[in-house]
Amino acid sequence: MNLIEKLKRNAERVDAYIMKLLEGEPPILYEASRYLLKAGGKRLRPYLVVKSCELVGGDVEKTLPFAAAVEMLHNFTLIHDDIMDRDELRRGVPTVHVKYGLPLALASGDLLFAKVYEAMTEVEDIPPERILNCIRRATKAAIHICEGQILDVSYPKLSEVSEEDYYRMVGGKTASLFEACAEIGAIVGGAPESEVELLRGYGYNAGVAFQLIDDILGITADEETLGKPIGSDLREGKKTLIIIHALKNASGEERRIIESVLGVEDASPEAISRAIETIERLGSIDYARREAERYVEEAKRRLRGFPECEARKDLEELVDFFIRRTY
Amino acid sequence: MNLIEKLKRNAERVDAYIMKLLEGEPPILYEASRYLLKAGGKRLRPYLVVKSCELVGGDVEKTLPFAAAVEMLHNFTLIHDDIMDRDELRRGVPTVHVKYGLPLALASGDLLFAKVYEAMTEVEDIPPERILNCIRRATKAAIHICEGQILDVSYPKLSEVSEEDYYRMVGGKTASLFEACAEIGAIVGGAPESEVELLRGYGYNAGVAFQLIDDILGITADEETLGKPIGSDLREGKKTLIIIHALKNASGEERRIIESVLGVEDASPEAISRAIETIERLGSIDYARREAERYVEEAKRRLRGFPECEARKDLEELVDFFIRRTY
Repeated sequence: MNLIEKLKRNAERVDAYIMKLLEGEPPILYEASRYLLKAGGKRLRPYLVVKSCELVGGDVEKTLPFAAAVEMLHNFTLIHDDIMDRDELRRGVPTVHVKYGLPLALASGDLLFAKVYEAMTEVEDIPPERILNCIRRATKAAIHICEGQILDVSYPKLSEVSEEDYYRMVGGKTASLFEACAEIGAIVGGAPESEVELLRGYGYNAGVAFQLIDDILGITADEETLGKPIGSDLREGKKTLIIIHALKNASGEERRIIESVLGVEDASPEAISRAIETIERLGSIDYARREAERYVEEAKRRLRGFPECEARKDLEELVDFFIRRTY
Repeated sequence: MNLIEKLKRNAERVDAYIMKLLEGEPPILYEASRYLLKAGGKRLRPYLVVKSCELVGGDVEKTLPFAAAVEMLHNFTLIHDDIMDRDELRRGVPTVHVKYGLPLALASGDLLFAKVYEAMTEVEDIPPERILNCIRRATKAAIHICEGQILDVSYPKLSEVSEEDYYRMVGGKTASLFEACAEIGAIVGGAPESEVELLRGYGYNAGVAFQLIDDILGITADEETLGKPIGSDLREGKKTLIIIHALKNASGEERRIIESVLGVEDASPEAISRAIETIERLGSIDYARREAERYVEEAKRRLRGFPECEARKDLEELVDFFIRRTY
């Protein structure tokens, strides 16, 4: 079975569990909370929980509520981020607040967040200290995501954001949840703290690589792949390593071309194309890709703390996929 | 020491704990998350946690993180509710989204929600099963609050809301957290399930009484007491037992007077006064007060399952205060 098939099989299992948790009254609230989950997603985070548990020799059957929890946590943050960023499309469909209005979007995010904890506390065949430890890690990730999101919207000007700022932001917004997933899988599997720590490092580095590639796709992918219009990241003035690199290395004229579309919602398709060409010519895409590869290598280095086995290979493949993916 | 003094002493302790939890980066996010807490509030819910623990003979010192947790949970829901309801004032000051903007208000609510769990999982001297049980109850309340809030905004027309609908809504939006507070105090105190259940019943009935009186104050209190303009509840078309009763018992003309201001944001002060007079004349305020008294009696009945003691007296006083309060 290749990675895509494995992801798919895992996703089916996780989704079935989540959909059962997301039934209730009033129906419209639960419908709104399921909507984004139903729109797609690869369930990478749940897969990471499962594989981390397998790697430490744990019983993967016990990971299901935790795998579901991290995916709900992820979706909760997406729904609220889309409100904050006023994004209108995600996974190729209207965002929750566009589809259901602000009150329902807000509440459905809150509901998903609460369901994260419902899932984790429903578990019965795991020692309570382990469950508490998982709750602690998931909570820490949630806090870091909030912090990262506000860090993002509070940097006043893109041209003043440094690479260090970028990594701090990504550490919060993206990598912290990958970290938590890897930790939680290991904890459920009963791993010693040293192995939890190795997997945390794997998760962190994998998460940063994932975001770097996400940023690249946000600039180079076509509309259908992206699920939103080409150049959206530029029009929104999204703070990516690519843009930071490009602005730092641009000549006056190149800088003008890029800045003419950054944060400009009605930038023309021609201006967007020119900006993308300029960014590519400056080597900023290649730079971000090399950085992503560096993080993938770091992630794999942590895995070498474990004996060779099927789960280790799966986790290696997972980060290779992060780099290789085109969607 | 009278109840007000006891509440104050408790509030100081809880606030000190919360303020330490709400420090971090970026500072603006943490400032926004502290803002509403600093604007006031009586910390009734933390008090309920402490007193429930005392009633079952538990060590009240251990309740502090849980008392802090329920207050943060409460404030999280207020911040998000104010966004959903587009309320501009609370506790006499601009609401968080008015003061800090939507993204920060949304994120500060999320942060408070996450901090609920951070507080509860930081605890070390309580058996983990008990902590998990507390987390379960707090989570259940959070879910019911989401459901209650959407039930509230999703009833299409006030005139079609029944008393039963009202109680279902209040059971979710208000009473569920009072329930959870009483349960959590008892669980931290190591009470057997029968006592947890008695206190749950106390919390539920106390919570409904609290909301009924809140609804009365929302119509009869002056602007300074209320922290927002007179008639706000009417202008917002808030679904209260009072209005349900008034509309059911009104003549054609009376109904017209009331409906002329319900949900009408720019209703004149004169129209508001006339509507309030009409509602009072119809006996709707008295009706709500009698209902509140009935719930207070129910709450006290549960307390009689415990031997007479200081904590029982304090909890009796607390619900008496719910009825008697003028703010």
